[in-house]
Amino acid sequence: MLAKIYITLKKDVLDPQGSVIANSLKSLGFNNVEDVRQGKFIEIKLNNKDKDDAQKQLGEMCEKLLANLVIEDYKIEIE
Amino acid sequence: MLAKIYITLKKDVLDPQGSVIANSLKSLGFNNVEDVRQGKFIEIKLNNKDKDDAQKQLGEMCEKLLANLVIEDYKIEIE
Repeated sequence: MLAKIYITLKKDVLDPQGSVIANSLKSLGFNNVEDVRQGKFIEIKLNNKDKDDAQKQLGEMCEKLLANLVIEDYKIEIE
Repeated sequence: MLAKIYITLKKDVLDPQGSVIANSLKSLGFNNVEDVRQGKFIEIKLNNKDKDDAQKQLGEMCEKLLANLVIEDYKIEIE
């Protein structure tokens, strides 16, 4: 099964990379841009058969390795 | 409106960062991991009112700045 993990900075954490993207887009003429936040997107192919078990393992992966919970949030989707 | 953009490496492009994540997960004991691909996730807040217009602008943003179309694919979702 394929899992998709979205890792984003928490709302109160500054995102300088996002600001640079926003400024670049504005300088290209996209004046409708109000705010940009950049995050990570990770696709993991698993050979688990049980979806609940996979969900639990993916949560552990995020907490142990993929996300920095002090400044980041994560969201897991399993297809 | 809020747009979400997912930028992923094309299937045939090597993803060394994904491989490192896969190996790290395996060494942490997650032996069910078969493959990992890492991409980017960008949230853009726009003050457009027309969804079709926003969709078109976001496509241009991806092609001009956000994605490298030689090696990357992009997907746009508007909420």
